[in-house]
Amino acid sequence: METLSTRDRIVAAANRLFYREGIRAVSVDAVAEEAGLTKRSLYYHFRSKDDLIEAYLAYRDQPNLDAYRKWYDDKQGSTAEKIAAIFENLAKMASHSKWKGCGFLRTSAELANLPGHPAILLGAAHKKKIEQWLTDCLEADGVQSPEAIARQIILLLDGSFAVVMLHRDTGYMLSAAQAAHTLVDTAPRTVSA
Amino acid sequence: METLSTRDRIVAAANRLFYREGIRAVSVDAVAEEAGLTKRSLYYHFRSKDDLIEAYLAYRDQPNLDAYRKWYDDKQGSTAEKIAAIFENLAKMASHSKWKGCGFLRTSAELANLPGHPAILLGAAHKKKIEQWLTDCLEADGVQSPEAIARQIILLLDGSFAVVMLHRDTGYMLSAAQAAHTLVDTAPRTVSA
Repeated sequence: METLSTRDRIVAAANRLFYREGIRAVSVDAVAEEAGLTKRSLYYHFRSKDDLIEAYLAYRDQPNLDAYRKWYDDKQGSTAEKIAAIFENLAKMASHSKWKGCGFLRTSAELANLPGHPAILLGAAHKKKIEQWLTDCLEADGVQSPEAIARQIILLLDGSFAVVMLHRDTGYMLSAAQAAHTLVDTAPRTVSA
Repeated sequence: METLSTRDRIVAAANRLFYREGIRAVSVDAVAEEAGLTKRSLYYHFRSKDDLIEAYLAYRDQPNLDAYRKWYDDKQGSTAEKIAAIFENLAKMASHSKWKGCGFLRTSAELANLPGHPAILLGAAHKKKIEQWLTDCLEADGVQSPEAIARQIILLLDGSFAVVMLHRDTGYMLSAAQAAHTLVDTAPRTVSA
């Protein structure tokens, strides 16, 4: 097993605690302790808690995108079925007791009094990447307004995170899968020449 | 103008501050000051900050339900158009700088480390009331699976709150209106005898 750099160890510790407890409930002291470091060592790598919050979300960006892509690619079937599969896989993930919704959305909710915070911008950029990727998938499938349908899928995706966090009922992700299937399936296609 | 009771004054102050700043960013001291009271007077009416958070959400419950009903009732047209109108009205509300998303969802995100907190249960009950009301509207319109479609609308509704908070782009609520319209419009109806 490769040894993590001190910086990576801090970010992994921040990810565990911030995701589990929330960014306001966790102190920099707690992150340092979780990483097995002094607070002073932590501040050598991160100037502020805000920097640490940003690094926590940056850490979750690519793995999340990769998971969506993998679920989409692994599913055999129509584009509607492949997009529905993303929600079906999320339902499985969300059934674990450690699942606590979307770190990006939860952070934006916790920072509602600080619009423009770097962590909110990072979360917005993350969601835009997913939206762009969905647009590309829908465009390749001949959907006439791929941006419009991609936005509808994003609403269902972020809706799933919010609703399942509240009710702790992963059945809502299967409802979202059905809705996404309907929206992609009924979307007008361009007629190929 | 009617004079508010001390309790009502506290709840109105809590609503202003908690909605604007978030529940963890605001102290009980700050709520007491906003209400023009001592902390001691506040604690005479509310045993704890948790009680105050619960009262804040209870205060928002009925007015929210009434707004959705009014938007639905005021819109002339099909059930699909009436439900889409809810999202169109939300888009107008969300364009105000003071709009900070859904107080219920934001609170559940802030309390992610405290599942079962009374405020989360109150938020869940609030969302279930909207879901039940939508189910009734869809059933009256002859939709075959009104519960399933109502859940899909709820996902779009809560998705709108989350996404618009992140991007500050109310256009997503109009995307949600279109998606809701499609889902209600394409839902199989029972054939009347």
